[in-house]
Amino acid sequence: MNYDDNEKISMAVIKRLPRYYRYLGDLLENGITRISSGELSRRMNVTASQIRQDLNKFGCFGQRGYGYNVEMLYEEIKKILGLDREYNLIIIGAGNLGQALANYGNFKKRGFNFIAAFDKNPEIIGKKAGDVVIQDVDGLEDFLKNNRVDIAVLSIPKTNAPQISPILVENGVKGIWNFSHIDLHTPDDVVVENVHLTDSVMTLSYKLSELENK
Amino acid sequence: MNYDDNEKISMAVIKRLPRYYRYLGDLLENGITRISSGELSRRMNVTASQIRQDLNKFGCFGQRGYGYNVEMLYEEIKKILGLDREYNLIIIGAGNLGQALANYGNFKKRGFNFIAAFDKNPEIIGKKAGDVVIQDVDGLEDFLKNNRVDIAVLSIPKTNAPQISPILVENGVKGIWNFSHIDLHTPDDVVVENVHLTDSVMTLSYKLSELENK
Repeated sequence: MNYDDNEKISMAVIKRLPRYYRYLGDLLENGITRISSGELSRRMNVTASQIRQDLNKFGCFGQRGYGYNVEMLYEEIKKILGLDREYNLIIIGAGNLGQALANYGNFKKRGFNFIAAFDKNPEIIGKKAGDVVIQDVDGLEDFLKNNRVDIAVLSIPKTNAPQISPILVENGVKGIWNFSHIDLHTPDDVVVENVHLTDSVMTLSYKLSELENK
Repeated sequence: MNYDDNEKISMAVIKRLPRYYRYLGDLLENGITRISSGELSRRMNVTASQIRQDLNKFGCFGQRGYGYNVEMLYEEIKKILGLDREYNLIIIGAGNLGQALANYGNFKKRGFNFIAAFDKNPEIIGKKAGDVVIQDVDGLEDFLKNNRVDIAVLSIPKTNAPQISPILVENGVKGIWNFSHIDLHTPDDVVVENVHLTDSVMTLSYKLSELENK
């Protein structure tokens, strides 16, 4: 492998890797074992030079004209993205969004296992979210003390998030996937990935306005 | 207003505007009418120089030492983001994720109105998603011919998305908010905002691995 572990990959490239990983996975499923940057460029609708710039540092390409070895590249990106291991996830907030996430089969396939779900609504406590039974959020702290939890999914309203976040941090949860519409303030050794849906639809409305003003 | 309409705002700044808009909205709700870049920096956890770089082009600040006029800045960003009008949205795929979006009150508050929901599952057709009744997706084309639809939300599996997307485009839908785990190929006058949740959780697992390797 030509990839030098000491070489820092920029966050911009990292953000693009899941998309490469998705396309490479599709290629593998279709039995395609090698691909040129030109062909990948056509399929992914990005320039071939962007692809070469992003991927050549990972090696996985043979002599000129051969193209990329799809499986090697796939495995390398998998390793970089930390997908060569399994993660234990819990869902906090088992409403529609929590349910959608718990039932989404793709996560399990990628090694993201939902091991518990919590809510404060007595009407849904005891019901199921995906494969797990929804527990009372009052038991969250105990659960965290007794189980390894890698990622907590926060699919709760923004008013509740600031109370829950410290409980997670104090009990050793290092990853928060935050769907609540608020920015969390966490220590440096806790990573947060935000999915702010209102921000996303605003970006769409911006693009629509721009289109109309053309 | 110092902001020059002809000046192109970079996509990086645009992507940050919803977050400013959110913070400014919170300030207004709390009766705060002016704020310094330093104070906004502290609240938003970005550098004051970043804030000045992002926002000074929109004007809205008085003499040195006064800080930003919160309401003017809020209104200006609202206009830039195209939030000074209303949008008609339809949901295609009224499962858990579609339900979560249809029931999320914040969208309506921002001018995003769900006017219809479609699904192909006979078990949920006729039931409600938020305020609207779920219709058979077979009626989608007719609906589009008879109603103004600005944005279609695709919360369907990736296998169905490529069939639905052309129906939208042919019937004049200009905005697609794509939650299906596939990249859509649309003409230049149709804008797509992707929310690929698997990509997002992969970015989180990358950050977690990086943390462990420190």
